[in-house]
Amino acid sequence: MKYFFASRTNRLLSSPLRDIREMSGKEYFISLAEELPAEELFPFKLLEQAALSVFSSGPSALQYGEQAGYSPLREWLNNDWNVRKGIRTVSDQILLTTGTQQAIDLVMRLLLEPGDSVLVEHPTSPGCLEVLEMQGAAIVPVFGDQDGILPDVLEQHMQRVRPKLLFAAPSFSNPTGILWSMERREAVLDLCARYGVLLVEDDSYGELHFDGLEPAAFYHKYPSLFALDTADQGGHVLYIGSFSKTVAPALRTGWAAGHPALIEAMTSVKRIADGQSSPMNQRLLYELLAQSPFRWGDHLSMLNREYKTRLKLMLELLKRPGWKGCSYNIPQGGMYLWVQLPEGLNSEALLKAALLKGVSFLPGTLCSTGTLDQRYIRLNFSRPGRDELLLGMNLISEAILEFTARS
Amino acid sequence: MKYFFASRTNRLLSSPLRDIREMSGKEYFISLAEELPAEELFPFKLLEQAALSVFSSGPSALQYGEQAGYSPLREWLNNDWNVRKGIRTVSDQILLTTGTQQAIDLVMRLLLEPGDSVLVEHPTSPGCLEVLEMQGAAIVPVFGDQDGILPDVLEQHMQRVRPKLLFAAPSFSNPTGILWSMERREAVLDLCARYGVLLVEDDSYGELHFDGLEPAAFYHKYPSLFALDTADQGGHVLYIGSFSKTVAPALRTGWAAGHPALIEAMTSVKRIADGQSSPMNQRLLYELLAQSPFRWGDHLSMLNREYKTRLKLMLELLKRPGWKGCSYNIPQGGMYLWVQLPEGLNSEALLKAALLKGVSFLPGTLCSTGTLDQRYIRLNFSRPGRDELLLGMNLISEAILEFTARS
Repeated sequence: MKYFFASRTNRLLSSPLRDIREMSGKEYFISLAEELPAEELFPFKLLEQAALSVFSSGPSALQYGEQAGYSPLREWLNNDWNVRKGIRTVSDQILLTTGTQQAIDLVMRLLLEPGDSVLVEHPTSPGCLEVLEMQGAAIVPVFGDQDGILPDVLEQHMQRVRPKLLFAAPSFSNPTGILWSMERREAVLDLCARYGVLLVEDDSYGELHFDGLEPAAFYHKYPSLFALDTADQGGHVLYIGSFSKTVAPALRTGWAAGHPALIEAMTSVKRIADGQSSPMNQRLLYELLAQSPFRWGDHLSMLNREYKTRLKLMLELLKRPGWKGCSYNIPQGGMYLWVQLPEGLNSEALLKAALLKGVSFLPGTLCSTGTLDQRYIRLNFSRPGRDELLLGMNLISEAILEFTARS
Repeated sequence: MKYFFASRTNRLLSSPLRDIREMSGKEYFISLAEELPAEELFPFKLLEQAALSVFSSGPSALQYGEQAGYSPLREWLNNDWNVRKGIRTVSDQILLTTGTQQAIDLVMRLLLEPGDSVLVEHPTSPGCLEVLEMQGAAIVPVFGDQDGILPDVLEQHMQRVRPKLLFAAPSFSNPTGILWSMERREAVLDLCARYGVLLVEDDSYGELHFDGLEPAAFYHKYPSLFALDTADQGGHVLYIGSFSKTVAPALRTGWAAGHPALIEAMTSVKRIADGQSSPMNQRLLYELLAQSPFRWGDHLSMLNREYKTRLKLMLELLKRPGWKGCSYNIPQGGMYLWVQLPEGLNSEALLKAALLKGVSFLPGTLCSTGTLDQRYIRLNFSRPGRDELLLGMNLISEAILEFTARS
């Protein structure tokens, strides 16, 4: 029989993301396109012990749990945020989700009517753009510079389109890795509060910073907007994050934190979306973080040292002749390098050539609406090991050379 | 700040389901409202061993996995369905989901525009109704009798409202426990095929049958509509189910199975909804089902013997004087008894009285649109142990007596 899909879903069904991920599953393939952490850095042995602890607590660990998520883990998050990041919450301000992707989907389903205007930092994460398209939102990109989005540009948009929310990632945005200055953080939060625009703050990458600062020093210098907001009366920011990049993705555990009224409503949408995320996985994380010899701070430091090294290698490789004419800013954290290709190159055409060579990257066009970023590519430096990175970068530069030689 | 939620979400935020579940979390509370299996029947020790096997395979078990779900588990399902149920599929016809709730949500998001007509078996599962309301569907109940929905009624609706799909649970529907006859199965499938209406078949409870038949004999007598459809050219049925009722809910693993084009499109919607379900939990299930001393058939037989005993106890208790004037049909499977209250009683008013006594049930109004089923209540017999069931049923009958004595 013929199926008739809802009109808004049509573009999603033809996304290049699907092809890239399908190819990436193949053994011989090198992917610099993914949003993956390095699996050899997972706290694997301690997670195994944590799993045993979960099972030792008896069969109730395998029953349905609380809809908002396992409360000891929510309490742990309260405490960790308070100690390390100066964020003051209580546990009914936290909803545990199936990763950040679900947190974004839930808040957009809750708030958006088709046609509602939404401001997004430009460029932004492909996962957020897909959710907004699915909800039929009118997406308005907000431009910025190396210090974050520009307050005067933001204010003009707020006056002009009366947006329902602003989506941004002030600490190591996906894809650019930009870290907003303190001044910009304060200015943007102030505008959101003045215009009554909810700020959805994606902090997926905020723990991954390579400046060697202690957490307290880092978060003092670059507080999350949620921390700044809770220090005041709160309610203007919904804070989204996950353990996927810092512990292990297969646990599929993220969160949304915000005003209790917003979290309660998102919990109702989650009841409809999937009932609840795996309470077993949430218990496992709690056992790891609170009950085992695992040291959270040491683990994050180790990750950051290692990812800094990988980024350094990628930067070295970019100096080779094959990358001539490419330009980029050096990020101080995150997982990605955002590279502008030489004039005349198109990222999607380049991707087709690269896939044939057995390597992938993310074309920049997926990080914005329309064709704004067709000269950009996003390279992931967290996942590939040294040999993979050497080979993968080499194959991409070969593909670039073939294009530039032709023109 | 003031939040403006999308208009369709407003009713969801005031659902009595939330209150019932909140109360049910309390220690002293007895819930006959839930959709929970008995945790003392989980294959707990074998799941613990399966967890160890997953960890013994190395850190890649904790990395992101395939979007459609762990392929060995999908292969296992193909094989199990083929052997036990005569369902012929290949693995690209299966999407693993976070329980049946997510499978329902994904297909409705994919297919429905606001205002689209959807036929639902009457009464039906509260979780499906909430999804349909969230999508803004025009819900049309289809009435039936003890053999299933009535084909002539169904055909009239198909001609009148041109529905996009029909949602039904032919084997032990939630809430009634009705088991459709073979004749009805064939007639309904035939109508769906003739009118080009997708049938979404919820088989959440289909494994829980108390007639003592071997699986082959049971599924020969009561084949899933998906089995009947795949035996023909296929594509008219989307088949939904889960391991939540048969293995353990905390693994949050269900599925949707159907035509590859439909499954591929649902996988794209899932990418937007949450990226993917926990691949670790899917591996754990696979280890249990395929690699351990666990015997699937024996486990299901044990569950069915035990649930049959629990149902029998509930039926005994219903003969007590406090339940005078109540009526019900005896289900041959599932988890629920659907009870009509004495004339003049209203299930939501009764629930308020029951909650004060420390017991809950599901008011029938949540199983249909409007106030169609206000004299009905749904009682769960799978979760409560003997003592809980005795006390819980007693407390409800006390509440009923107080109402009937007054009138």
